[in-house]
Amino acid sequence: MARANANLTADGHAGPNEQLGYEMSMFTIEATDGGARAGVLRTPHGDVPTPAFMPVATQGSVKALDPADLRSVGANILLANTYHLYLRPGVDVIDAMGGLHRFIGWDGPLLTDSGGFQGYSLKHLRKITEEAIFFKSHIDGSMHVFSPESAMRHQRDLGADIVMPLDVCLASDAPRAEVEAAVERTNRWAARCVDAGAGDGQALFGIVQGGLYPDLRRRSAEFLVSVGFPGYAVGGLSVGESKDDMYEVLGFTTGLLPAAAPRYLMGVGSPEDLVESVARGVDMFDCVLPTRIARNGALFVREGRVNIYTAPFQRQDGPIDDGCDCYTCRTFSAAYVHHLFRAKELLAYRLATIHNLRFVLRLMEEMRSAIEAGSFDAYRGEFASRFVPPEQRTQLEQKRKWLAAQGRPDGRRR
Amino acid sequence: MARANANLTADGHAGPNEQLGYEMSMFTIEATDGGARAGVLRTPHGDVPTPAFMPVATQGSVKALDPADLRSVGANILLANTYHLYLRPGVDVIDAMGGLHRFIGWDGPLLTDSGGFQGYSLKHLRKITEEAIFFKSHIDGSMHVFSPESAMRHQRDLGADIVMPLDVCLASDAPRAEVEAAVERTNRWAARCVDAGAGDGQALFGIVQGGLYPDLRRRSAEFLVSVGFPGYAVGGLSVGESKDDMYEVLGFTTGLLPAAAPRYLMGVGSPEDLVESVARGVDMFDCVLPTRIARNGALFVREGRVNIYTAPFQRQDGPIDDGCDCYTCRTFSAAYVHHLFRAKELLAYRLATIHNLRFVLRLMEEMRSAIEAGSFDAYRGEFASRFVPPEQRTQLEQKRKWLAAQGRPDGRRR
Repeated sequence: MARANANLTADGHAGPNEQLGYEMSMFTIEATDGGARAGVLRTPHGDVPTPAFMPVATQGSVKALDPADLRSVGANILLANTYHLYLRPGVDVIDAMGGLHRFIGWDGPLLTDSGGFQGYSLKHLRKITEEAIFFKSHIDGSMHVFSPESAMRHQRDLGADIVMPLDVCLASDAPRAEVEAAVERTNRWAARCVDAGAGDGQALFGIVQGGLYPDLRRRSAEFLVSVGFPGYAVGGLSVGESKDDMYEVLGFTTGLLPAAAPRYLMGVGSPEDLVESVARGVDMFDCVLPTRIARNGALFVREGRVNIYTAPFQRQDGPIDDGCDCYTCRTFSAAYVHHLFRAKELLAYRLATIHNLRFVLRLMEEMRSAIEAGSFDAYRGEFASRFVPPEQRTQLEQKRKWLAAQGRPDGRRR
Repeated sequence: MARANANLTADGHAGPNEQLGYEMSMFTIEATDGGARAGVLRTPHGDVPTPAFMPVATQGSVKALDPADLRSVGANILLANTYHLYLRPGVDVIDAMGGLHRFIGWDGPLLTDSGGFQGYSLKHLRKITEEAIFFKSHIDGSMHVFSPESAMRHQRDLGADIVMPLDVCLASDAPRAEVEAAVERTNRWAARCVDAGAGDGQALFGIVQGGLYPDLRRRSAEFLVSVGFPGYAVGGLSVGESKDDMYEVLGFTTGLLPAAAPRYLMGVGSPEDLVESVARGVDMFDCVLPTRIARNGALFVREGRVNIYTAPFQRQDGPIDDGCDCYTCRTFSAAYVHHLFRAKELLAYRLATIHNLRFVLRLMEEMRSAIEAGSFDAYRGEFASRFVPPEQRTQLEQKRKWLAAQGRPDGRRR
């Protein structure tokens, strides 16, 4: 275990960052263990211990939970989506209500994604030009333009602590020429976002794209680092590629980023991916997976995922997972949760979401402790030996189905 | 205001009640004001101040809420449905889990309805003979028999504090001959339920039927009082008749019941009906209305009902109802709740349900205080002058639609 200095600065990038009004010291690394890092992210709405998982409140609500639930599961920072909030209720409404924190009743740190991912996930509903992404609303078919400048303006009005630039995200099987063009455009858009500027106290992260091509990832990262951001996201992963490919590209990409800045892997959140990504130096995550599968009755336990609908739970008097400290497991039998799902009771979705989020957030806490104790490798090995993820094929199939459902009126959304 | 003795007994009915193992003293009237009464119902799981409203947990869950929510809105007793729980998860499952209280995580008083109402609301799925009600399951079409004896056996196994006999409930427009036959059968079934017996500590109430016919109501009440029950329910109201008819029959019927026993008006729960029924001497209520309309976005405010979906709420920075002390109003703007409904976020249903239940339970608390203070008439007048119920026609139409939906796989159920 190596203890890092409290206020590392990225080599040679203090200048540009100062120009942006950011302090690199928003992030402090407290301990490292191999590639894994334990730190603290400082925001105007409080500190976030890292590695951190951000529950996703796409439309300003982590589905089925309220802010008290989110505190109870140990959430320290949430993610919301600019594009979705822009469409409904409208950024102007949220601005008039005093900003996103106040509107949703969450006084902790918030990050807003820009809408760039929707340029990928809603692909049959958009056109992308050099100027902007042109969206057809999945709600009412109306036309909307998201440019780097308007994405920044909307995010200033929403007032999250961390904001993201508009980027171009592609599927993992996109041809090289397309990926290359997307990297170049993402870089130009990042520069336009920097010029447009974040709000007071807001930190604008950079997003590294480049698909599965190491040289394109390098080109993207080098450009962003030359501009200088207080944090760097890795985008365009977990979009259809295999886990091996994802881990390889991720490990390569984090190595291109300044050690002192926080690294955020976008859209990743299965337990095994969280552990493997922390091992590769990632500090922040968001993903709908834990909450989405919870609503389908897929619940995390020590050994993997279980389906609460199945017969063995009908008479299980004990909790869903022995030793789980979540409200659901402390209060109700697995048999009751099974019944609620079978009877389609709304409480089922809340109890299951609490359970899965607590599982993931406890995993983050455990990893942080292991890094601090210098025992992360042992933790990672222990985890891999007991937690058996569903077949990779099943996961990919589920992801593809989900992506295909994006943009339908009843489709699930990131 | 007249203060009643602490341990009134029903004239001449101490004998039969003792035979049943009940104590009339499960109910204490602490104050009366005109026909209205303030009392305390004692149960093995705690005391219930009356007038009391019982939120409905048909399938063992008050839709969208958990036990902590129910405490927070001021619920002191819940109602669950024997027929629904018998079908799913099965009484045997709940019995094996230690009974209904433990299964649903509610350690306060519980009342179970027998399934008699489903003999009315699921009328295309049942046949009624002298022996029993034969149901075709609305879940899977399987056949089931509910007799007075099996209804009691199931309720003993569920272990609620108050249990109800199987009864025959009819629509308000049933011909007199049918109503008369139903009264006679309900009386015979009540006697069979008494013979079958409730569990230790359980109180079996009688149910007065008789439709809109005073002489049949009298015949029903006189029989039940001659048997002697620790409490009496008024069934077969709010089943399609006008409010005037309901109030008239209710006032007549409560006058037939022993003053010392608690009186429970089944299936009634609009705010105006609660006030008018308390004025007529009712002590207990249950109804899905406050929770059902909440999930449709119809919310109670001082002046009546509002539709949270409508435009005026889009930018209402204040709470749904000024002066409401519920968690929803203390925590969120009306604009946020409006957004959650528009965006179909699951949290909407919980926040709305909390609000409407708190409204109704606060109404009960206010009525109790007014009765104790001898100012119930003034309270009733003030309430009637400010709270404007939706057009009676609209309400009847809604009720008919709801009843028509009963028994469909996705139908809402009492």
